[in-house]
Amino acid sequence: MVYTIGIDLGGTKIATAVVDENGDVIAHLEVPTHAKEGPQAVLDRMAETAKRVAQAVPSIQPMAVGVGAPGPLNPKRGIVFGPPNLPGWDHVNLVDELQQRLGLHVVIDNDANAATLAEATLGAGRGYHNLVYITVSTGIGGGVMLDGKVRQGEFGCAAEIGHHIVDINGPLCHCGNRGCLETFASGTAIERTALERMGEPLNASRVALLAREKNVIAQQILDDVYRYLGAGLVNVINLFDPAVIIIGGGVAQIGRPMFEALQQVVNNNHFRSSVGENVQVVPAQLGTKAGVIGAALLPR
Amino acid sequence: MVYTIGIDLGGTKIATAVVDENGDVIAHLEVPTHAKEGPQAVLDRMAETAKRVAQAVPSIQPMAVGVGAPGPLNPKRGIVFGPPNLPGWDHVNLVDELQQRLGLHVVIDNDANAATLAEATLGAGRGYHNLVYITVSTGIGGGVMLDGKVRQGEFGCAAEIGHHIVDINGPLCHCGNRGCLETFASGTAIERTALERMGEPLNASRVALLAREKNVIAQQILDDVYRYLGAGLVNVINLFDPAVIIIGGGVAQIGRPMFEALQQVVNNNHFRSSVGENVQVVPAQLGTKAGVIGAALLPR
Repeated sequence: MVYTIGIDLGGTKIATAVVDENGDVIAHLEVPTHAKEGPQAVLDRMAETAKRVAQAVPSIQPMAVGVGAPGPLNPKRGIVFGPPNLPGWDHVNLVDELQQRLGLHVVIDNDANAATLAEATLGAGRGYHNLVYITVSTGIGGGVMLDGKVRQGEFGCAAEIGHHIVDINGPLCHCGNRGCLETFASGTAIERTALERMGEPLNASRVALLAREKNVIAQQILDDVYRYLGAGLVNVINLFDPAVIIIGGGVAQIGRPMFEALQQVVNNNHFRSSVGENVQVVPAQLGTKAGVIGAALLPR
Repeated sequence: MVYTIGIDLGGTKIATAVVDENGDVIAHLEVPTHAKEGPQAVLDRMAETAKRVAQAVPSIQPMAVGVGAPGPLNPKRGIVFGPPNLPGWDHVNLVDELQQRLGLHVVIDNDANAATLAEATLGAGRGYHNLVYITVSTGIGGGVMLDGKVRQGEFGCAAEIGHHIVDINGPLCHCGNRGCLETFASGTAIERTALERMGEPLNASRVALLAREKNVIAQQILDDVYRYLGAGLVNVINLFDPAVIIIGGGVAQIGRPMFEALQQVVNNNHFRSSVGENVQVVPAQLGTKAGVIGAALLPR
């Protein structure tokens, strides 16, 4: 049996796991990132946590380390460019830094691509060769598998689904462009809209609960989210042509009402009507562990 | 030397060529499609034209036939679903039909994918592994090469760039969706806007000529086209992450002013600024022959 270590580097926590070749988690350890301490301290903490999780199963010798990190990053060169939630990271060569600390082969990809790999291999995407994974959370990220492989693009920036423009005349996104999908349909967008229309920055689950209780404003907020997210899915379909779209992240916890609404938008994608086969929109299956499991699968 | 026959099936003409393994055209023949006569007559004409172009170089024995046809179509199953400009084609198995008529192995893909393959192999995309080709003509089509291969998607419908939504509140597209890129930036859109604002349905070249002569309305029409097309390129970049975007088709004949304007929009794609490497926007090199040459490359 071959074992690898997965590290999911986030702005608030570092999740690590020892994973076997079936994708089963043998040991798991999470620590706070303390991102404010800067890259060297965070790299030290990543290495230390990876060593500790490996020591939890001393009979096992992990072969390699996979890291899912926030983008933009260049997986081929191993460089993290400077994600907004990791202050001080400016073109850090994460692969070199970790290899020096751990003495093991290190592979990185962006966190959404790692989660895509996990869902494709072990979750809702098993058996498919062409799929898109979208995480709708604080922001909106994603990954794309085409012909059986997660495609990174030239600079490792493919499938940045939250930052494609669905309304050229829309409001300014924090990225600097106008009308990105993330501006309308992320968890942050839902809280902002709830504050504007309901006086409180309610999160997606709270808004969904109120909508189930027939609160008209809550339902309108969700309908708007589904309309924009639906347009995003139509674009994903007309550009990537996946067999299935997998949606994870906190906002996807709304569950059935959301998936039914999105499936309806997708089924009404007129452009593809002549093809006669609808793309399925399904929930992610691996939950919050998708990131760390996918990271562990990267070196394979 | 290995030779193949390429067939570029269009709504108005059928272009055929015998192409050698370097991509050089040995013989070339074009006939009108007479699309109104329906699929059987068009298939007969395709087969007959392919035979005639092969007979023009009797010393050569072509190994196989590649066909670029209007989408949507399923390249794996060989089926053309029913393109708007080929009346009567409703789930026609083009591969079976042509193989019966020609006794040669037949491969199909959509015409934009064939042109993408040609530009990637022999044109503006030589040496790149990740690129997007966009044809801006009557409509807007495209193809995507990732990791060295043109990606068709699950049903052969990937990279339908003209039918991705850039303005969710925009006008109805002929495909039935709202605010598709094609509605704003195709040759047809330019003619329609020219009719509205200048009283005449001027084509892109005419509008560009007037703009060069300092006609303010003509310049505004082009600026709007560049703004929408630019948003489309930003989306293509944030989703496919190509190293280069190649633009062909009649509208691209505007040339330098268009490519300069688009390059500027792409360089201002804030989302990617931290990556620090701009995607190049370049003109296609193979002109109208890209389709038939790419078709001939399909069976390889």
